[in-house]
Amino acid sequence: MLSKDKKILIVGLGLIGGSYAQALKRKGYHVGAVSRSGDTIDYALQYGIIDAGTTTPTAEFVGAYDLLVFALYPHVFLQWITDYQQFIKPQALLTDVTGVKCSVVYEVQKILRPELEFVGAHPMAGREVYGIRNANCEIFKGANFIVTPTDANSEEAICEIEQLGQALGFARISRLSPERHDEMIGFLSQLTHCIAVALMTCKDVEHMSAYTGDSFRDLTRIAKINDEMWSELFLLNREELLSQIDLFQAKMDELKSAIATGDSEALRRMMRLSTERRTYFDK
Amino acid sequence: MLSKDKKILIVGLGLIGGSYAQALKRKGYHVGAVSRSGDTIDYALQYGIIDAGTTTPTAEFVGAYDLLVFALYPHVFLQWITDYQQFIKPQALLTDVTGVKCSVVYEVQKILRPELEFVGAHPMAGREVYGIRNANCEIFKGANFIVTPTDANSEEAICEIEQLGQALGFARISRLSPERHDEMIGFLSQLTHCIAVALMTCKDVEHMSAYTGDSFRDLTRIAKINDEMWSELFLLNREELLSQIDLFQAKMDELKSAIATGDSEALRRMMRLSTERRTYFDK
Repeated sequence: MLSKDKKILIVGLGLIGGSYAQALKRKGYHVGAVSRSGDTIDYALQYGIIDAGTTTPTAEFVGAYDLLVFALYPHVFLQWITDYQQFIKPQALLTDVTGVKCSVVYEVQKILRPELEFVGAHPMAGREVYGIRNANCEIFKGANFIVTPTDANSEEAICEIEQLGQALGFARISRLSPERHDEMIGFLSQLTHCIAVALMTCKDVEHMSAYTGDSFRDLTRIAKINDEMWSELFLLNREELLSQIDLFQAKMDELKSAIATGDSEALRRMMRLSTERRTYFDK
Repeated sequence: MLSKDKKILIVGLGLIGGSYAQALKRKGYHVGAVSRSGDTIDYALQYGIIDAGTTTPTAEFVGAYDLLVFALYPHVFLQWITDYQQFIKPQALLTDVTGVKCSVVYEVQKILRPELEFVGAHPMAGREVYGIRNANCEIFKGANFIVTPTDANSEEAICEIEQLGQALGFARISRLSPERHDEMIGFLSQLTHCIAVALMTCKDVEHMSAYTGDSFRDLTRIAKINDEMWSELFLLNREELLSQIDLFQAKMDELKSAIATGDSEALRRMMRLSTERRTYFDK
């Protein structure tokens, strides 16, 4: 179990950072926070989500923490490390919540002071709402927590981040290499968001909304998307996402060609495979 | 209101035909049925879903009904009209439940005896289960009932089919031309089923199932698909479906190109439009 003596600093108090803080404070940990917004810090203090907070990272404040969780946009995270890592206590452990891994984990490990250790992690628990006011540690229940260690990591540090996932209340904690993580997320999450955005923008269907059934609603739920965050995540996983789009488009072409030529048997073969494979995902 | 004196014949007792029968009998109508399966007729009689049934359409049986609902696969429906329409009572009204309209409605109207009238309808209430044993008139609650009249139809007959939709318990009853219906269904339903099938078949993701979140599950729920029925519906709406696929693929290409060239602004513009448009579909 993650030792109760660990003082934990959350850098970035959005939906995920705020929910981390709430979960950990309820478990009895001392939780501090850094946010650019004074209003966010005030709110988090007032509602007992954090024990201490600041808008200005100082050596005294940052240096008091043993475990640092970065819940920032990727480019902000890398800039923060560059600007403030000299304040971090020697032997402190760092982790993050970023939705892509290769382009973040290796970069941070490259620039980090050698006596610090960073283990990447991805809590798969997003929502279509934002900010500290929506923070809710219930979103971790039933969700996946993926730790993405590299050769630069010690087994001890990896275990500690897995224990963090347990303390947060995740249902399933697993390890994947940054590469396997990015392939998986490129297919299961980024490609599906691309599809939803393309479906929603390829035709103005306002006049059709009265006829819309559950399946169109389900497919486009994720078409409500934080453009700043997702455009950054897409571009940071560019090669992998392009490969996944190519795979999908090749299969759409195959379907289209079967429809155009009236090849009923080819259509039915694809539908049977699809039906069979979908059973993997029945809960 | 649809007169209670009308005797209603359901031809084809699958999920939809069976649910029609159950709803109408509960409302007090006399409901008969024709099914190829003696077991289906026995089940429907035993559970009080129908008042009378047969596996063999005869002049005596079929000729007793005023309103006939065809809940058959399209090619079976057309064959049935050819084989048995001579048994139908003069001035009887015919309707159907088929998911595509142009290729069915005009064909049936072309071959129908001139003293009979056929008004097409599409109850948008499918499920991923089949057969009389899953019949459940609750599936019509909150759903859309679309009547697709043509120039061959009288206002009186159209109104009677709208009243049928009311008697079945649909939440919203509307009229669309067969052409507008097929465009709408090509986009909202058939294209989304193509996407789900392509997504499910383009990559073997069994090893990823542990990491799958709600968005991938939502997008592929409809990948469990009745291949016999859907391949027929796709091919009967071929030109319209191909146009919708083209629209979608052009937008996927645009997204892919923005990702490949790192055009963050183009990505964000599409995401903002997608977010804005998705609000049309909030319930």
